[in-house]
Amino acid sequence: MPAKRRVTIAQIAQEARVSVPTVSKVINGRPEVAPETRQRVERLLQKHGYQRRTGLGDRPVGLLDLVFAEIESPWAMELVRGVETVAREAGASVVISVLHTHAGPGRDWLERIAARRTDGVIIVGSRLSTRQRGQLIARSIPFVVVDPEGEPAPAVASVGATNWHGGLEATRHLLELGHRRIGVIGGPPDMLCSRARIDGYRAALETAGIPVDPELIRYGDFLVNSGHDQGHELLSLPEPPTAIFAGCDMQAFGVFEAARQRGLRVPEDLSVIGFDDLPLSQWAWPPLTTIRQPLQEMAALAARMVLAMGRGEEVEARRIELATELVVRESTAPPRTGDQ
Amino acid sequence: MPAKRRVTIAQIAQEARVSVPTVSKVINGRPEVAPETRQRVERLLQKHGYQRRTGLGDRPVGLLDLVFAEIESPWAMELVRGVETVAREAGASVVISVLHTHAGPGRDWLERIAARRTDGVIIVGSRLSTRQRGQLIARSIPFVVVDPEGEPAPAVASVGATNWHGGLEATRHLLELGHRRIGVIGGPPDMLCSRARIDGYRAALETAGIPVDPELIRYGDFLVNSGHDQGHELLSLPEPPTAIFAGCDMQAFGVFEAARQRGLRVPEDLSVIGFDDLPLSQWAWPPLTTIRQPLQEMAALAARMVLAMGRGEEVEARRIELATELVVRESTAPPRTGDQ
Repeated sequence: MPAKRRVTIAQIAQEARVSVPTVSKVINGRPEVAPETRQRVERLLQKHGYQRRTGLGDRPVGLLDLVFAEIESPWAMELVRGVETVAREAGASVVISVLHTHAGPGRDWLERIAARRTDGVIIVGSRLSTRQRGQLIARSIPFVVVDPEGEPAPAVASVGATNWHGGLEATRHLLELGHRRIGVIGGPPDMLCSRARIDGYRAALETAGIPVDPELIRYGDFLVNSGHDQGHELLSLPEPPTAIFAGCDMQAFGVFEAARQRGLRVPEDLSVIGFDDLPLSQWAWPPLTTIRQPLQEMAALAARMVLAMGRGEEVEARRIELATELVVRESTAPPRTGDQ
Repeated sequence: MPAKRRVTIAQIAQEARVSVPTVSKVINGRPEVAPETRQRVERLLQKHGYQRRTGLGDRPVGLLDLVFAEIESPWAMELVRGVETVAREAGASVVISVLHTHAGPGRDWLERIAARRTDGVIIVGSRLSTRQRGQLIARSIPFVVVDPEGEPAPAVASVGATNWHGGLEATRHLLELGHRRIGVIGGPPDMLCSRARIDGYRAALETAGIPVDPELIRYGDFLVNSGHDQGHELLSLPEPPTAIFAGCDMQAFGVFEAARQRGLRVPEDLSVIGFDDLPLSQWAWPPLTTIRQPLQEMAALAARMVLAMGRGEEVEARRIELATELVVRESTAPPRTGDQ
C-alpha cells in the first residue's frame, strides 16, 4: 500500500461537521458523543486512514490485549503462555478479557481499550464485524485474529493452524488403520477452524472412495461434555462408528468417558483421535493420539505481528497457518476383525 | 487503625531532603532516581502511610493485576477465571504477569505497575519480602497474596485453602480404607500450602498411631513430571506404599503413569488421591479421588478484597482460608488383602 498523506483531526472534524474536540473524544474512547456522530467520525477516520500522532510507535503502553470468547478449556492457557513470552521480551504485560460470546468485542470493551490504550489486540475465536474492525482501525489499535469465527475480511491479519490438513491427516490415520465407519465431532459450526477440520475429514473419506454419511457428522462446543454427549449419540446409531475423530482433545476425553459408560475399550473397541495436543493429553488414559497444533507458537506469532504493526512496520502475510502434525499414541488401533 | 493525618508529598520531600518532583517520580515509578534516594523516599512514604491523592478510590484504572510465579498447570487457569469474573463486574480487565520465579516481583515489574497504574495486585504462589511489600505500600498499590510461598507478614492480606485440613482429610480417607503404608508427594517445600498439606498428612498418621516414615515423604514442583518421578521412587522402595497422597492433581496424573509403567492397576494395586479437583480430574482414568479446593472462589475473593482496599475500605480478615472438601471418585480403594 502506498503511504497516504496524513490526515489531521481538523480535516476529519471539518468533513464530519463536528468540532475538533468531538473527533478527539471519539478517538480516545470518551463516552459523551452521540452514537450517530461517533459512527460518522469513525467512518471518516477509517476512510482517510487516520494515524494517531502520539501513536504506539512513539511510546509503548506496555500492555498487550488478549481477548477470548471463552476460557473454559486448558487450550486457552496455551495461548496465554505464548503471548506472555513475547510480551515479556517486549517489556509488556498481557491483559486478558473474556467476552463470553463469539460475537466479538462490544462497544464497552472498545471504549475501555481506547481510553486506557494498548500496544495491540489479539482476538481469539471471535467474529469481528466490519463495524468492529472499523472501530479498531479508527483508533489506530493494531489487531490480529487467532482462530477466527467466520471468514475474516481479507485485510485482517489472522493466525491459525492448518486445520483442513489436520482434519485430513486425522481421518487418513484412521483409514490407514482399516476403519471405514468414522464419526467426527466438530466445534461450533461457525468457527472457521472447526469447519476446516470437518472439510478435511470429508476430503479424506472422498479420496478413499468412502461415501460421507451425514449421520456421522456432529457438532459440539469444543468442551468435554459435548464430546461425551455426541459420543453417546454416535455410539447409539444402528450402525455405530468404529473410530471417532473428536475435533479437539477435550471432546476426545468426553468420547473416552462415553465409551467407558457403554463398556467399550479404547482403542480395542473404539479408536479416538483428538486435535490440539494439550500438555495433558499425553497423560490421559489411554494416552491420546491427536493432531498437534502449535498453540503457543500461534499465539506468540500473533503477538509479534501485532507489536510490529504497532511500531508501524508492514506486516506481510495477512493470513498465516502454522503446520499441524499427527502424534500417534495409544488411543487408536485397527478395528476388530469383523467390524471392517 | 486510627485514621492518620494525610501526609503530603512536600512533607516527604522535606524529610527526605529531596525535591518534590523527585518524590513524585518515585511514586509514579519513573526510572531517573538514584537507588539510595528511591529507598529513602519509599521508607518515608511507607512510614507516614502516604496516600495518593488521585487515589484508586477516585477513579479506577480498569486494570486488575494477577501475578503468577508460573502458569504451567491448568490450576492457573482456574485462578484467572475467578479473577476475571470479579474484574468484569467491576468493569476492569485482568493483567497477567508471569515472574518465572517464586522470589516475588522484581524492581522492573514494580516500576512498570507504578507507571501505568493498577486497581490492585493479586500475587500468586510467590514470596513477598518486606522490601517488596514496602514498595507496593509506598505507591499505594493494594495487594493480596494467594497461596504465599513462605510465611507472609501478619499485615499482608492473603487467601488460601484449608491446606492442613485437606492433607489431614486425604490421609484419613486412605487410613479409613485400611491403608497403613501411605506415601506423600508435596510441592516445593517452601510453599506454605505444600507444607500445610504434609503436616496434615503427619497429623492424620500420628492420630491413628502410625509412625511417620521419612522415606515416604517426597517433594516435587506440583507438575505431572515430578509426580511421575517421585511416584517411581516411592514404588521402588523395599517396602513400597499401598497408597499415595499426590499433593496435587497434576502430580496424581504422574503417579498414575508411574503405576502403569510398573504394571500396577489404580486403585486395585495402588490408591492415589490428589488435591485441587481441577475440572479435568473427573475425566481422568480412573476418575481421580481428590481434595477439592475452591480455586475460582479463592481468586474471586482475593480480587474483591483488593478492589475494596483500592476503594479505601477496611478489609477485616487479613488471612482467609476457604474450606477444602474430600471428593471420592474411583482412584482409591481398600488395599489388597495381605498388603495391610
